[in-house]
Order: sequence, then structure tokens, then C-alpha cells
Amino acid sequence: MVLLCFINFLLIMKPNLQVQSKVQPLLWDCRDGGTPSLHVLDQRLLPHEKKYLELTSYKQVIEAIKNMTLRGAPLIGITAAYGMALAVNEVKAIHELPLQIKRLKSIAEEIKQSRPTAVNLKWAIDLVLNDIAGDCHGMPLQEIITKRAVWIHEDDAMRCQKIGEHGAKIVETCRSKSLLTICNTGALATGGIGTAFGVILTVHKKNQNIKVFAAETRPRQQGARLTTFECDENEIDCILISDTACGHLMQKGEIDLVIAGADRIAANGDTANKIGTYQLAVLAKENNIPFYIAAPLSTFDLSCKSDSDIPIEERHAEEVTNINGKSICVSGVKVRNPAFDVTPAKYISGIITEKGILCGDYIDEIKNVFNEVTFA
Amino acid sequence: MVLLCFINFLLIMKPNLQVQSKVQPLLWDCRDGGTPSLHVLDQRLLPHEKKYLELTSYKQVIEAIKNMTLRGAPLIGITAAYGMALAVNEVKAIHELPLQIKRLKSIAEEIKQSRPTAVNLKWAIDLVLNDIAGDCHGMPLQEIITKRAVWIHEDDAMRCQKIGEHGAKIVETCRSKSLLTICNTGALATGGIGTAFGVILTVHKKNQNIKVFAAETRPRQQGARLTTFECDENEIDCILISDTACGHLMQKGEIDLVIAGADRIAANGDTANKIGTYQLAVLAKENNIPFYIAAPLSTFDLSCKSDSDIPIEERHAEEVTNINGKSICVSGVKVRNPAFDVTPAKYISGIITEKGILCGDYIDEIKNVFNEVTFA
Repeated sequence: MVLLCFINFLLIMKPNLQVQSKVQPLLWDCRDGGTPSLHVLDQRLLPHEKKYLELTSYKQVIEAIKNMTLRGAPLIGITAAYGMALAVNEVKAIHELPLQIKRLKSIAEEIKQSRPTAVNLKWAIDLVLNDIAGDCHGMPLQEIITKRAVWIHEDDAMRCQKIGEHGAKIVETCRSKSLLTICNTGALATGGIGTAFGVILTVHKKNQNIKVFAAETRPRQQGARLTTFECDENEIDCILISDTACGHLMQKGEIDLVIAGADRIAANGDTANKIGTYQLAVLAKENNIPFYIAAPLSTFDLSCKSDSDIPIEERHAEEVTNINGKSICVSGVKVRNPAFDVTPAKYISGIITEKGILCGDYIDEIKNVFNEVTFA
Repeated sequence: MVLLCFINFLLIMKPNLQVQSKVQPLLWDCRDGGTPSLHVLDQRLLPHEKKYLELTSYKQVIEAIKNMTLRGAPLIGITAAYGMALAVNEVKAIHELPLQIKRLKSIAEEIKQSRPTAVNLKWAIDLVLNDIAGDCHGMPLQEIITKRAVWIHEDDAMRCQKIGEHGAKIVETCRSKSLLTICNTGALATGGIGTAFGVILTVHKKNQNIKVFAAETRPRQQGARLTTFECDENEIDCILISDTACGHLMQKGEIDLVIAGADRIAANGDTANKIGTYQLAVLAKENNIPFYIAAPLSTFDLSCKSDSDIPIEERHAEEVTNINGKSICVSGVKVRNPAFDVTPAKYISGIITEKGILCGDYIDEIKNVFNEVTFA
């Protein structure tokens, strides 16, 4: 039944998607009459084991986001929207609609707090809240929210495809054969083929014969664990390197282009992304290598004017001190573990969005693109 | 007996060493009449276990250097010299002295090949070869070579102390309270208190209340495993960070000074060191943070004019793909694993040597310091 639902979902989207990944991180189980559930590929077990967890409550969704069963800013947003759909179950006992909505708003706040830096989460939840705030025309809350969650999911897949197409032109124009990327920004991070990785996959599908350097991305090693996995599944030539080797390979002329995703982009183009991204941007500039960010417009947070408005989440010390269940250092050592850093716009050659490439004067470019866009 | 020999050794050096580390990586077992042996602290087991391996042949010394039972350019040089002393055992069956020396020369070449980038190895072996090439005045080869090995060991301890003193002045002048370092450059890497770490220890002993950020230093994690250990043993305030967090902390103004060791320094100041050092130098420059190299003059290789003459060793893929005995990526992924990178001299604020600080026009400074120095 889950499989059927997954196939239906694919059938709906297929006509519009030329490039597809072989990796699928989320399945929405929507069988008629039963309690809906969300099947989430447990990314903590990858690449060694492919196991889906079945989530039936919004509390489980929060836990899955917090403990990184899944990650990636767009995928977190999509999952959060499905989490709101699961939450409807818990307000069914409340008889009056306004009180149901009041409770859902409080749940929405709880879900928003699960990963404070990922702006897509806030964006997705706010879309859901907006839908149920107005006149529902007698449509059940479950149906309204599920419809929106599926829309956010499909919408993200379309955005990924467009980012892939725009980005592929950049890679072709730069004649880049050897791309360096950090973290994981593929199907495992989004509702479609990915952002930065979506560009890589699009170029690959065009038989451009590219080579991808995947930076390990300590502390959580998403590059080593997930990007090598997605490359392998999609038969892309991939080379794993330590985060310490990125600069050396740039210096030696082995990297043609650096491409990364984003967790939040300020109104001036300053970009928060996985810790280590800022370093790559500085090193790329120093070695005259183009450095691109790929992200959907949902990643922009215009309420942040610049880097100083972006909160940086610090995560558990154990992420740094323990690998594969074993300590790598003396016990009791102090740790700093910022999960993100901010790359100032001046280091970014361009931001690849579903609406095209932003570059040059980012403040104006971002303002213009948002003036043209009307979100559903 | 080993302990006695160790104590004797310490007693000899003590009068001249104001700053001492609580960590001891090498013990030369020189009991009268018996076969000499070298006890090496197995650094691969640190910080979880302190275990000494007893080496009785030069082949075991080569193996220990190759498999990184011990590491650190100066310590490799010292160990190699003791390895030559152990090799004498194997030429005893040869009756004529010139043939014994011929065989030792061939063994010397074998030892030199164990870590091609570390120039101290070549330097130490050449000192030994020079001693036995001339008139030995009837002194046994064993005695000549052992004397030289102990001299190299003690000499390195003295150099470390002087580097520590010169470096401490820099740290004081810069009023640096928060130092970032990479890899391990302490007692575990040298014959004394260390190079970059020796500076840190010297400042610490003066009660300067400093804080050390230890970069993990993937792939082999010498920062996480060894520098946190040495800080702990010497009660230095230490904070472990991922290699990806270095740039962010510099950008946020949390690092006052970066200090690193060196594996080989060219005649123009270009410095080969642990992979990841170049990145730190570029990031330090971008954030107006002083970046210092600390190394004894034995690390200079004037036969290398610049970076392009320095060979960069590529090591096993398993160092990148496996941590704590478990793979971190899909099986069969390609890997690049350069063990070192080269930091061009233009990024280096100064090179702290036992003869003082070199800075400005490195070509002249290095030429001058070597004109003043006569090696024993």
C-alpha cells in the first residue's frame, strides 16, 4: 500500500521531471480511511543500511528532525508540513474548529523550534498555517494540510529541476569537469533531485563526464556518508576527500568549480550553510575558482538583512568527540560545535535559484526576484 | 633497567631544560652488554591506551615509522637515528669494516624511504652516515651511532626549548590568549616539548592563561587524539573543533593567533606541513590573524628552492574511508589522500626557529641564518 502510494506520487510528478534520482527519502502513506503515516529513510544508517521509519505523530516528526534521521533544509520543510498533517489526529478530540486551529498553531511553534537555522521549516509551516487560518469552506483540516504538504513536496521537486537546469548552464559555460561539493544536497536533502547535487546530477545526465569531489563534512560526515551514496546510486564518478584536503586540491588546480547548498540566505546574499562552507568560499576566491550556491527561493529569509541576523545553532559535543560509537579524544575535553557558518555574499560567484542565477548586486537582485514571484 | 636509562637520560638534559612535558614518546634501552632496543609509545592507541612497543631491529623501526606508531618530523628523525644504531647488530656478521659501512649505507637508504616528505629523517640519517664515513679511531660503530642518536635526541630537546622561548615572546607581543593549532607538534612529535606545541606549553608555564583550539586534523586525527591528550597531561585549557569549524571561529574573532609545525621548509620559506595547514594560513590572512610556523632548522631543506620541489606523499585510502575500524562511506569509493600541503611563504607571518624568528624576506633570512649556523 505504501508502495502504491509512492508509485502514484511518482506518476503525478513524472511528466514534468526529466531528471530523476534513484534515491527516495520520504514516502507519505495515505491509504483511505486509515491513519496516515510518514515513512522516512533513516539517513543516520546510510550508506550501510537502507531502513525506513514509520512516523505517525508530530512528536515523532520533531524527534526525527532533531536527531537527524533526516536532514537538509528543504526536506526538513517538507517533513514538517507532513508533521502538521499528522498533528490533525491529535486535535480530533477537540470539538470546536477554532480551538483545533489554536492547538495546531501551538504545535506549529513546537515544530519550528526543532532546527532553528533551517528557514524552509518556518516557511513550510507558515504556508500550512495560512491555509487553515482562512475560510476552509467546510473542507476537513486533514485534507487541507495534506494537500498543502504534498504541494510543498511536489513544488520542491520542480524547483530542484529548474535549479538543476540553470546550474547545468553555469557548469557548461565554465567548462567545469571537476566539481567540489560539501555536505549532502541531493535527493536526501530535498523533495526532488537536490540543489547543488541536483545541478551535478543534471550535468551528469547530459553525459558531461564530470567528476565530483565530495568533502567528508565533519562532524556528521554527510559528504562521506550521503553524497558518496547518492553518487554511487546515480553512477556519478565520485572522489571522497577529507575536509582538510580541499584547499590543497584547489591550489593544485584540480577543482574547476565549487558548489554548495544553503540553509538560509539573507537579503544581501550572505549565506548560512553547513559548517565548512565559508572556508571553501574563501579558498575558492584565493584560487580564482568559481563558488556557487544553489538553493530554492524558500531558503531566502528577507527578514535577515545580513549575516549578523542569522542564528547559528551549536550542536552536541558528541558529534565532534565520537565517531562510529567510539571517542576520538581524551575524555572530558571541551568542544565547540557550530553546525553552520555564514559565507559573506562577496565570496559567492552566483546563487542558482529556480528563477535563474542571481549575481552581482545581490541586494537588488534578490529584491527583484522576490518582486516577480508570487508564492501560492 | 629501561626506567633507569630513561632517568639517566632525563638527568643529563635536566639542567638545561626549564620547561618539560609530562609526555615521553621514546625510551632508548642501553643496558650494558645486552642488545640495545628502542621503546616507542604506540601513538595509534592514544589517548585511550599508553603502550610502549620494544623495537630491536631497523626493519621494525621502518615499520613503526610507516604505520605511524610514531609520527612528527623531528621524532621520526630521532627514531631513524636510533634505527641506525639497531642496524649495527645486523652487520656484525660482516667481518670487514668497509663492507659493514657499505651495508649500513644501504640500510640508511631504506630507512630514508619510510616517509619521503619528512626532511628531518634524511638530515638525521646523513649525520649518522657522516660520522661513520670518516676515521672512526677504532671506536665501535655501535658506540659512534648511539652517541649520535642520543645527541640528535638531546639536541632536538634543546631546540624545542629555544623555539618555545622565542615563540612565547611572539604570543606575548600579539597579546594572544586564544591559539589555534593543527595536528600534533608536541612531545609526541619531537625529542623535547615540541615545536608549535612547545610554544603553547612555554606560554602556559608562564601562567599566561591561554586557551588552545585543537583542530581535529583528519584523516588521522592527530589534533583530536594527540593534542587534546598533551593538553590534558599538561593541564592546558583545550577546545576540540572539527576541521570545518576553523574558518568560522576565525571569522567570529575567536582566534587570536594560528601556530603550526612543519615537515619541510624550502629555501624561500614555502612550508610543507600536515594536510589542512594551507587552508588555515589562507583563512588567517583573510581574517587578519597572525599565522606562524614553528620548526627547528633541521626542517629546512635548502635543496628545495620552493613549493614545487617538495614531494607530497599520498597515503592509503583507508585513512579517509575508515574511522575506528568502520567505513564512513559507500564501499569502493575513490579517494584522494594527500598527507601534506604546502603553505606559500606569503601567508606566513613568521617562522619561529631555535635561532629566532624569520620573517619578511624569507630567502635572505633563511640564507643568513644558515650562514651563521654550523651543524655538529
